[in-house]
Amino acid sequence: MAATLNEIYNARSIALIGASQDPNKAGYQVLKLLLDEGYEGKVYPVHPKEPEILGRKCYPSILDIPDAVDVMVVAVSAKVVINVMKQAEQRGDVKGAVVLSAGFAETGVPELVEAEAELVRIAKRAGIRVFGPNCIGMAYPALKLNTGFAPGIKLIEGSAAYVSQSGAFGGALLMFAGDQPCPQGFAKFGHIGNMCDVSNLELIEAFNNDPSVSVTGAYMEAVKDGRELMRIAAASEKPNLILKVGRSSLGAAAAMSHTGSLAGSDKVYDGAFKQCGIVRMDTVEDMTDGMKAVASLPKPKGNRVCVLTEAGGMGIVSMDTIDKTDLVLASIAGDTLAKLEETLPSMAMICKPDGYIDMTAAVSPEQQAESLRLVLADPGVDAVLLMGLPPIFRDAKDTAERISPVAKEFDKPVAVCFMRGESMAEGRRHFEENGIMTFDTPERAVKALETLYRAAFRNGHPLEDLPPAPRHHLVEKAVAQGRNLLEPEAVSLLADNGIPTVDHAFATSSEEAQDAAERFGGPVVLKVVSPDVIHKSDAGGVKVNIRSRSEMADAYDAMMSEVASRVPGADIHGAMIVPLAEPGTEIIIGMVRDPQFGPTIMFGLGGIFVEVFKDVSFRVAPFNEEVALDMIKETKAFELLGGVRGETARDVGSLVDLLVKVSRMAATQPEISEIDLNPVRIYERGLAVLDARIILSCGN
Amino acid sequence: MAATLNEIYNARSIALIGASQDPNKAGYQVLKLLLDEGYEGKVYPVHPKEPEILGRKCYPSILDIPDAVDVMVVAVSAKVVINVMKQAEQRGDVKGAVVLSAGFAETGVPELVEAEAELVRIAKRAGIRVFGPNCIGMAYPALKLNTGFAPGIKLIEGSAAYVSQSGAFGGALLMFAGDQPCPQGFAKFGHIGNMCDVSNLELIEAFNNDPSVSVTGAYMEAVKDGRELMRIAAASEKPNLILKVGRSSLGAAAAMSHTGSLAGSDKVYDGAFKQCGIVRMDTVEDMTDGMKAVASLPKPKGNRVCVLTEAGGMGIVSMDTIDKTDLVLASIAGDTLAKLEETLPSMAMICKPDGYIDMTAAVSPEQQAESLRLVLADPGVDAVLLMGLPPIFRDAKDTAERISPVAKEFDKPVAVCFMRGESMAEGRRHFEENGIMTFDTPERAVKALETLYRAAFRNGHPLEDLPPAPRHHLVEKAVAQGRNLLEPEAVSLLADNGIPTVDHAFATSSEEAQDAAERFGGPVVLKVVSPDVIHKSDAGGVKVNIRSRSEMADAYDAMMSEVASRVPGADIHGAMIVPLAEPGTEIIIGMVRDPQFGPTIMFGLGGIFVEVFKDVSFRVAPFNEEVALDMIKETKAFELLGGVRGETARDVGSLVDLLVKVSRMAATQPEISEIDLNPVRIYERGLAVLDARIILSCGN
Repeated sequence: MAATLNEIYNARSIALIGASQDPNKAGYQVLKLLLDEGYEGKVYPVHPKEPEILGRKCYPSILDIPDAVDVMVVAVSAKVVINVMKQAEQRGDVKGAVVLSAGFAETGVPELVEAEAELVRIAKRAGIRVFGPNCIGMAYPALKLNTGFAPGIKLIEGSAAYVSQSGAFGGALLMFAGDQPCPQGFAKFGHIGNMCDVSNLELIEAFNNDPSVSVTGAYMEAVKDGRELMRIAAASEKPNLILKVGRSSLGAAAAMSHTGSLAGSDKVYDGAFKQCGIVRMDTVEDMTDGMKAVASLPKPKGNRVCVLTEAGGMGIVSMDTIDKTDLVLASIAGDTLAKLEETLPSMAMICKPDGYIDMTAAVSPEQQAESLRLVLADPGVDAVLLMGLPPIFRDAKDTAERISPVAKEFDKPVAVCFMRGESMAEGRRHFEENGIMTFDTPERAVKALETLYRAAFRNGHPLEDLPPAPRHHLVEKAVAQGRNLLEPEAVSLLADNGIPTVDHAFATSSEEAQDAAERFGGPVVLKVVSPDVIHKSDAGGVKVNIRSRSEMADAYDAMMSEVASRVPGADIHGAMIVPLAEPGTEIIIGMVRDPQFGPTIMFGLGGIFVEVFKDVSFRVAPFNEEVALDMIKETKAFELLGGVRGETARDVGSLVDLLVKVSRMAATQPEISEIDLNPVRIYERGLAVLDARIILSCGN
Repeated sequence: MAATLNEIYNARSIALIGASQDPNKAGYQVLKLLLDEGYEGKVYPVHPKEPEILGRKCYPSILDIPDAVDVMVVAVSAKVVINVMKQAEQRGDVKGAVVLSAGFAETGVPELVEAEAELVRIAKRAGIRVFGPNCIGMAYPALKLNTGFAPGIKLIEGSAAYVSQSGAFGGALLMFAGDQPCPQGFAKFGHIGNMCDVSNLELIEAFNNDPSVSVTGAYMEAVKDGRELMRIAAASEKPNLILKVGRSSLGAAAAMSHTGSLAGSDKVYDGAFKQCGIVRMDTVEDMTDGMKAVASLPKPKGNRVCVLTEAGGMGIVSMDTIDKTDLVLASIAGDTLAKLEETLPSMAMICKPDGYIDMTAAVSPEQQAESLRLVLADPGVDAVLLMGLPPIFRDAKDTAERISPVAKEFDKPVAVCFMRGESMAEGRRHFEENGIMTFDTPERAVKALETLYRAAFRNGHPLEDLPPAPRHHLVEKAVAQGRNLLEPEAVSLLADNGIPTVDHAFATSSEEAQDAAERFGGPVVLKVVSPDVIHKSDAGGVKVNIRSRSEMADAYDAMMSEVASRVPGADIHGAMIVPLAEPGTEIIIGMVRDPQFGPTIMFGLGGIFVEVFKDVSFRVAPFNEEVALDMIKETKAFELLGGVRGETARDVGSLVDLLVKVSRMAATQPEISEIDLNPVRIYERGLAVLDARIILSCGN
């Protein structure tokens, strides 16, 4: 059985294959890193000829090392790697291999892709877990272990764990941490390189389950199994901050439906991350600031921030930023207010607006400390943003020394922005050594507090595991005929899944259509039924507002001849007749099968909203009522359904129910590849699906 | 006659009123700054008793200084300031006063507000220009002159000028400049404090006209005269980068019209800045990075960026960011491509996608330099973003030394992001010393290049100065009656201003309304005409789709009784009858008088778009066709008017014409305080204003 990742990180011995005397080679740099840092296990350099390197005895091959080898770090050229793997297999005791060597599948060259596959085969056979190839491996400060060759990375213990899909960013994220006023430590680091075996998901899960880790951050370019990521994140007790890159829509697949063309993987990632409680980061700075905040500050009890500033300018900038986040200004209690007025200089602007306190430059460090105590003690305050001027007559460190003890009295986060220059550095260091985190600008301080809040209040919904449903007889029939569902069939399928549909009739002749029109009484709509007519309106396949038998006769003939001329050779099964629906708020619901996340539901306002504003949200199926409501709230539809311009509020409950049912239907019926319910009209009570298109995976 | 700001910055002698031996006082710190920096003029400390301070002879009062005094810096308590001003007046030779003292109008205390007014009166009388009070004054590195008391600010000459409305930010912006890998210099700095005399606008204009300045940046909280700012910026040959803060909508005035409630000053600033060519900055980092880029990099000829990266991760992040900016990826010529393939390692990904080159970590500094030369020589490339890894086996400075000379061969901007850690600092310094600017993250590098592009291609439209038009007779009549325009009057006023309106009839009885319905033939709309009914639909004052005399008789009675019951006591003048308009794309045009910018036009899609999506744009009246088209393009309306879902394109030309005419009408008719044309329907040819509301400043 292969070792756990935890066992590999706790390696007590490392063989370095390709150790070198040449400072220009990785085999030299890694050895030097291990020795310089004082790795707590044993290190065995391997080189065919050298007797020793950097004062350490060298072995001609891994087979010559007499003692146990837990992990081997491979820094030889790609073509030698297979042989090294075979030797490790022969030894039988190697648990992990960190393959630094590049020149495998990432090149796209068929023989090198095959070499990587061979590497994996040997590893599986031998029970060896592989990082890479083409990676900088792992780092574990507790053991002073670092297999990467980035000399600038310092091993300081901390509680943040990092998973990187980019060597450059892996190193850079740690370097950002090292560049802080008080360098931030980390618990564990892993770079997956080509991800031939150990994956980013496995590392995230392992770190989430590691007692020494308080937060896991990941730089992510792609994920092989989106549902597995969601499972891991939803199950985690620790926040996952992920910088998912590759947002451009280049990769969006061309698809037959609206939903397909709107999907574009990034919006799906957005929805999936929200659903499973991943805190998505937008920029490299968000990531580094957010990790620092979450790893080091107390968890806030809510999103109410009090701004304490020495400088009006910084205060205004922070308020502008708060306005754009999920944070709100705190409301300060009356007695706190009175005490602040006693404490602060007479010029101070207190609670204008509420929760915003401009202490002015005349404030003393003692007054700052006391004001901080007052607002931290106020039950209406969840976090404090303290901002200071470049000190003129006093020392920033002295100010920090007076303020820090106050913050420690309370279990609430305090973020500091002291702008700027050398004189502030010492003050910032003192703050950070005492558990108050500092940030470069007011904007970044606010965003870090927002990340802290989002991490504390993330709400991860696990994906329910639904068994496949038996194939519906209409689906069976369509599959047998190699075609998609006709609209009346789609409507029946929806109805059989508990979805409210509109009354309708199916006609195969003008006479039948006229009978139907007469039976419905009021004005009706006539729609062509044909597997070959995808865009019915464009093909002349929809006629509205038909009020009588004679109008129907005309409409039927007109429609049939238009469709025949616009879609020559179309297989026309007949026509569907439905009563003209009452006006209501139009929305669209769609489903596509995303390559990463599987069945994925889209929701948005209908008509030009969806086309021009692209105001849609996505969630991964199946999901419950809470997730459905979240996805409605994510769009402007929620405001509109609540009633604007004096309109009555719409039945959001029925919409939630519809979304949940469509999501369950999509999750349990794998033959359905796309669904478009467009439009669905939402009324004061209930809703109506006016047009349903269901595409089967066999049907195109 | 008062001195120019330029004369004041070129002061050859400074009296420091309130010089002090106490390092805790501004009067000590400013003197020390002047002496330490080596101010090139003469310094006269003034103190009632001290014979000398910091080795300089002291004068009991400014009146005792025998030689000329160009500028006095005032660092005494507020209550002494007036007396000092009077002494300066008595001398007669003081050109400028920099009043550091706080305790004036900023306190809101009436007697201190009055003291500031008195200060201004004396200054005006004496021809003395005043910075402040409550300011850190000015800095001018060419003369080693700094009246501010922020000790961290270094006086290094450069071509960037800064205007600040916040002492903290003034200092901080300069400190950011000083914190760069190679400290960035500046040309001039001014902090306006309470802005009792010298204003931010004056400073911006003076700096724009200063030959030593290449770019003016401003931190701005408010502006007294928005039109003056627009005049200055539009006339400037140099870019103005402005961080305008206070974006929250707290300040938006309650107003009777849609436009008023949507105005909120920030959206107006956005539109006004675009119109006059100001490059608006979003964050403190955007500002500092943007100033650095614009002051130091060559002007790009376009927005086509080539990304050259050593690391895929940084490359992807930069592409995601480019996607969000006005920049585009360059298209690389075939022969450049061929040469890149010869130059770069075989693993390199060249032009996948176009303009994106992942050189891979295997690239040598020589190959990087040659690749840079190739893409800079390509006429399809306007700027290059070069990104590097923390170097492993080589020195970042060595890499920089090989690359820098190549960049110098071309007149195109090159931005560098070398992430990160101490080993990179020297490389970054070398780059910056050689005119290549470096940035902390890929996102910030891309944004700096965008600012550079926006600064180069800003298109400032001067505001045309239109004389007021004679008062229209209908306006005259309404003003005389102290009411707003009735809808038929509004329609006539629009028509007389060359705006196409719909055919309409006015009826004061059911009979007249029936005649009108008969005359129009097709279905008509009936609307109540009353100065007391603002929201006609809500009051039952609109009836649609009336097809006959009898339908009109019913509708007329129903409407009149509904209005009478819903708006009791309403003065009903009659009813307006208009033919039911053809369907078309509905937009809204509005006008409000903004306190800073005067007549301001709003444009957006009509109906729920304007209410829920708030997808509107603003421009300051009057404006020309080009500005009108810009404001349409700023909203989603442009895409919609172009035709979506197979609809035909709408007549954008007629809409542009309408916007221009409304803007001229607003600019020339000061009695009109608000206009709402809502909706306006735009057709394939032409348009129709379906509802017009014009509110007069006398009418409420």
